[in-house]
Amino acid sequence: MAMSEKTAPMARTNTARSEQTRSRILAAAAALFAERGYDAAGVAGICAAARVSKGCFYHHFPTKQAVFLHLLEDWLRGLDFGFQEALAAAPSVVDGLIEMAGRTRSIFEARGDRPSTFLEFWAQARKDPEIWRRTVAPLRDYRERFRAIIARGIAEGSLAPVEAGAASRVLVSLALGTVLQSIFEAGSEAEAPVDGRGWEHGMQEAVRLLIGGIGRRET
Amino acid sequence: MAMSEKTAPMARTNTARSEQTRSRILAAAAALFAERGYDAAGVAGICAAARVSKGCFYHHFPTKQAVFLHLLEDWLRGLDFGFQEALAAAPSVVDGLIEMAGRTRSIFEARGDRPSTFLEFWAQARKDPEIWRRTVAPLRDYRERFRAIIARGIAEGSLAPVEAGAASRVLVSLALGTVLQSIFEAGSEAEAPVDGRGWEHGMQEAVRLLIGGIGRRET
Repeated sequence: MAMSEKTAPMARTNTARSEQTRSRILAAAAALFAERGYDAAGVAGICAAARVSKGCFYHHFPTKQAVFLHLLEDWLRGLDFGFQEALAAAPSVVDGLIEMAGRTRSIFEARGDRPSTFLEFWAQARKDPEIWRRTVAPLRDYRERFRAIIARGIAEGSLAPVEAGAASRVLVSLALGTVLQSIFEAGSEAEAPVDGRGWEHGMQEAVRLLIGGIGRRET
Repeated sequence: MAMSEKTAPMARTNTARSEQTRSRILAAAAALFAERGYDAAGVAGICAAARVSKGCFYHHFPTKQAVFLHLLEDWLRGLDFGFQEALAAAPSVVDGLIEMAGRTRSIFEARGDRPSTFLEFWAQARKDPEIWRRTVAPLRDYRERFRAIIARGIAEGSLAPVEAGAASRVLVSLALGTVLQSIFEAGSEAEAPVDGRGWEHGMQEAVRLLIGGIGRRET
């Protein structure tokens, strides 16, 4: 009894310290990936920036890929949280989709100064089926979730009776294509925003055009 | 006079032979990129497959990148030709856009068995500003051309009076996003087609949805 009273706070302190170290590794890796790109950022560099030993690094993460996946999944969770919040607060699915598009700023910010980090990672990931699966899985999840959201919009009457699966694929294409264009454009001018505003504005514009359609209504 | 009569056919033969060798290198490289991916396909492998010496290879192309860019540009020319033909034959811009979307089969075929080749190349290209520029330039060209086509559609009355630049960005996003989804999906099932049909069908479906809009018309 006396012993457990003594060890419990110490265990908590160790856990808290371990969590801090883990967070420091993640922050250092995120900064280094953004600055140097995925390929050029090595475990040694991450350790130096986080002020930890290699032993300490490998105690927390098996590989550099694991660190990247952790950052990716953390960031996706944040994105999801924003999406769910936007959708819950919107009066209709149409309003919800437009609001969600406006909350994609973190996608473009997450790319950091080295926007090709994702391209590099994808190219690397392609060689490892397990990593590939974990990279592709979120995209499938989004397609499935958007399909359900679109079906709800059709049921409530704010969306036309389109094929929900096809419309969902189009939404995911729009998102991916906008991210890719932002990556390609970043190389040229200073982080080329859309009409002087952020890329998330372009994303919102795209969703609005998809909802309203670009074809003449009379025909 | 007599001399030129003698050398002219010989010069033609040499040129024809040189062209054949060049074509053989390009065909071998295309097959190898598709089979092994961009990184793993080396100049030595290309030379072996094309049955040429390294000296011969470097007589025709300065680098492996140059071969890839040549293939890319050749393929883009073919795509353009199909697009222009589709647009010229269509009774309206709306019909033209749908017809163009259906002619994207070569995009998905060009990816070959190793669909990540483009990702690998982009990741590599990012490190070389000149190569990057040549990779990004076609995308800009497409955005500019689609802008002009959309402006024509608005003028003729088949398209709604949308902002042509924004609509063009959406079309390019749709195309890029569909290609990216096809790349990601290829890793999982056998070349996952859209509803049992090719990805170009998905592209056409996407353009139709963008033209018609997914929002309820009454609202």
